[in-house]
Amino acid sequence: MIATVDVHALPPARREVLAAERDLSAAVSGRFSTRSLDRLSYARDLWPLALVWIREGRIPPPPDAIVWPGADDEVAALIMRAREHRLPVIPFGAGSGVCGGTVAVRGGLALDLKRFDRIGPVDPRARTVEVGAGVLGETLERRLEARGWTLGHFPSSIATSTVGGWLAARSAGQCSSRYGKIEDMVLSVRGVFGTGERFTTPERPFAGPDLAQLLLGSEGTLCAFTSAVLRVHPRPEARFLRAFDFPSVEVGLEAIRRLFREGLRPAVVRLYDPFDTAFVGRSNDAAGSPTPPSRRDALGASVVPAFLRTLAAQTLGRPRLVNPLAHLARRARLVLMFEGEAKACEADDAAAAASCRLFRGTDLGESPARHWYQNRYAVNFKLPRLMEAGTFVDTFECSAPWDRVLDVYERVRAAASAHALVLCHFSHAYADGCSLYFSFVGAASDAQATEARYQRLWRNALGAALSAGANVSHHHGIGLLKAREYQDSLGEGRHVLAALKRHLDPDGIMNPGKLGL
Amino acid sequence: MIATVDVHALPPARREVLAAERDLSAAVSGRFSTRSLDRLSYARDLWPLALVWIREGRIPPPPDAIVWPGADDEVAALIMRAREHRLPVIPFGAGSGVCGGTVAVRGGLALDLKRFDRIGPVDPRARTVEVGAGVLGETLERRLEARGWTLGHFPSSIATSTVGGWLAARSAGQCSSRYGKIEDMVLSVRGVFGTGERFTTPERPFAGPDLAQLLLGSEGTLCAFTSAVLRVHPRPEARFLRAFDFPSVEVGLEAIRRLFREGLRPAVVRLYDPFDTAFVGRSNDAAGSPTPPSRRDALGASVVPAFLRTLAAQTLGRPRLVNPLAHLARRARLVLMFEGEAKACEADDAAAAASCRLFRGTDLGESPARHWYQNRYAVNFKLPRLMEAGTFVDTFECSAPWDRVLDVYERVRAAASAHALVLCHFSHAYADGCSLYFSFVGAASDAQATEARYQRLWRNALGAALSAGANVSHHHGIGLLKAREYQDSLGEGRHVLAALKRHLDPDGIMNPGKLGL
Repeated sequence: MIATVDVHALPPARREVLAAERDLSAAVSGRFSTRSLDRLSYARDLWPLALVWIREGRIPPPPDAIVWPGADDEVAALIMRAREHRLPVIPFGAGSGVCGGTVAVRGGLALDLKRFDRIGPVDPRARTVEVGAGVLGETLERRLEARGWTLGHFPSSIATSTVGGWLAARSAGQCSSRYGKIEDMVLSVRGVFGTGERFTTPERPFAGPDLAQLLLGSEGTLCAFTSAVLRVHPRPEARFLRAFDFPSVEVGLEAIRRLFREGLRPAVVRLYDPFDTAFVGRSNDAAGSPTPPSRRDALGASVVPAFLRTLAAQTLGRPRLVNPLAHLARRARLVLMFEGEAKACEADDAAAAASCRLFRGTDLGESPARHWYQNRYAVNFKLPRLMEAGTFVDTFECSAPWDRVLDVYERVRAAASAHALVLCHFSHAYADGCSLYFSFVGAASDAQATEARYQRLWRNALGAALSAGANVSHHHGIGLLKAREYQDSLGEGRHVLAALKRHLDPDGIMNPGKLGL
Repeated sequence: MIATVDVHALPPARREVLAAERDLSAAVSGRFSTRSLDRLSYARDLWPLALVWIREGRIPPPPDAIVWPGADDEVAALIMRAREHRLPVIPFGAGSGVCGGTVAVRGGLALDLKRFDRIGPVDPRARTVEVGAGVLGETLERRLEARGWTLGHFPSSIATSTVGGWLAARSAGQCSSRYGKIEDMVLSVRGVFGTGERFTTPERPFAGPDLAQLLLGSEGTLCAFTSAVLRVHPRPEARFLRAFDFPSVEVGLEAIRRLFREGLRPAVVRLYDPFDTAFVGRSNDAAGSPTPPSRRDALGASVVPAFLRTLAAQTLGRPRLVNPLAHLARRARLVLMFEGEAKACEADDAAAAASCRLFRGTDLGESPARHWYQNRYAVNFKLPRLMEAGTFVDTFECSAPWDRVLDVYERVRAAASAHALVLCHFSHAYADGCSLYFSFVGAASDAQATEARYQRLWRNALGAALSAGANVSHHHGIGLLKAREYQDSLGEGRHVLAALKRHLDPDGIMNPGKLGL
């Protein structure tokens, strides 16, 4: 994709950065670059709007330089010098965010943390591991699994996101119903404030204000994380998968709610609405899964007739006509997975199946669920390709308590359906509620029209979700994209956040513009 | 106890408070008092050191006035006026804290929140209830139970503590292994900052810094809470109780750890060390339980021979001699309780029993555990009576991850054993670790000697706990008592807390001295 961008169109690095190069570079043992290709690489994350820009040959605001510190002291020294020179500092993991959380709106220094790549030994009694912020998710999980452990954190970005990014944006993995979100796995965090001061939060604080929970989710605006002590679990002995079809989204949601009310804790709970059921089947195929053809269509094809899918694909420019077709295919598919000790899993799987049958769920057995499992990261590689192909795709996620989930679902669909084809699945469920994960698919023939549509779509969808009682984000974070709505959602709390910002980042250099700060 | 204090010895209310009376009183619709008996009543909580003072006729620093606001606006107006007059404001629930968290070290206004007594309707779909900060725990639980619900929060202070106090001090109930601590039950909190600004935190925030978790545990130093939205659960259908004896504390702890590792989630998990096992049996008798004599000694008498208990009681002044006797009676008693759906409880109870047997636990059946359950709040009424009787008693609690629990236990015992008889039970257990709850029992013939011993005991015990890797508190909070150690435990985070304090309480009027702020 970068090939379509003219490197020479890159604005030159700011003079003040070049002037301070020796000083800044010394802070990080010379690992400092202002090369165009580096700056271009760090100019974007996976924010779809930036992808639209790049497709049009426009470059998102790049950082002026990239630095690669290798120790907490270097991060502290770098931030101190950035303060002196009043240069923005943008903590950077692997750039897989989708809300523009690392876009260098005021230039400055991309602080790449990948050299914080240490994975400590697992403490088998405490069941903890200390991990550097720059460790990639997949690397960590593979290493843990080789030793008989798991973190239990499987975001679909696992191959392209870091521990530091997870901490900064309150990441959720596909098994969050069992293991929690990353903030639930953290025992303590370490890093450097925007003052240049190093910190380590106390482990498991039970008294006093919880400072770790204050820093988690701060998306680089208050501090840079360098490592964390995380809770680990023994590798599950067994994994039970099962899929169900429900007569409607509403009934499917009731069934999930009931599972949690019964005290069951599946690792994975995903309910797909009719359109998403159909497209998940398609897109998993497109991602080149090694699944044999007989299984390929297992998830989807039976739910939405082929002609409907074809129609949808051919009428992206007329979403107002296509969206109502969802009502023709009302069935919603649920994927459940239990993992842990074999006996307990088997019992839970049986209990869940019995409970789902009470809600008129058709038990489809293991196969469609296993298909999902085998392709569970595929969606991550699909999006840029679709964007290249001229389609406009974005995902929008939020969460809501059980009493408001259906209302949020319906109002977002209504708000977005004029602008794009709307798919939704309910991807992370808890005792209190669940997350809603919408995909918007639209035509993108004309660049300016696409951006205008993107903005309209986002503001409408997010406004509808919030007015129905949704939380602004479940796990994608805030970034630039949801900054305004996030600030609004804080009420008087926004002054607290602003005060923290002033204290922890007195020069306002830490990742400017994100979270509305 | 108040009868022993000479009301006339009460220092007069400060002139600046009397001068501002009209102004302050108007803010709270005239509910303002400077009467001596009121000021005396609000001069103390249940901090044992204050009880020692009172026994000697000394009065802890009293507030200059008490105010009883009835609405958020009144709290806001009161705080605004207190700011103008630079008067301390001490949010006050029911005064059952044991760390001096409401002692008016600089006088000022006790802000009694008991008029915030509203219990909203339970939202059965969302499973939430909005509750005023002034509602007493027992009132709330009775009301919920009458409607078929439970909060699942049963601190031993339940009859004498309020929702606001729970929020302020991060309270834990006896069933926290199943339902969590109060901070886990909170969906949002409402109140007034020390600026006089009202706030409501967003419900269930999944993105951005978590402001509710920042305010919970702030013990009145940043804000006054006026209400909270809390999660509720259906009343449990069944309750299974069972007790075990283990050959030692160490083995008992291993057994508990194993229960959690197996995924079992008992509501109650309490392991008593040999001395505590003996004294719990005695003290429940003393509390006047209606249990028939045949059961009265069920918990305790069989574990520690009667002569040992008599010896201990008669030799409180010589703890160095008595403490080692614990080694003569090494057995440790575990109380387990499962609650919830009958079938699930029964299965869990059976699984737990099987697991405990693997650790050489002697299954004592239901009776001793039921005895504990019936007398579970008795300890709360025992302490002042013991203090009146001239005995010096205090409790010290902290928490530790599993890998450090035993070390904390042994080092605190060693540190305290020269000063008092040391009893311990492990009262709240989780997957990661558990809390340790020590009771110190000593002679208190001479007032000054008692206070000196109290201070030595506390500093030694807390120092030993922290050096062994304990957390400064699990659920009693910080108050005045642990302020220094709490601040030390924060590391660089103490500057963050100080900055928050400056912002949310710019005049430093909110509960001065607590948390070391």
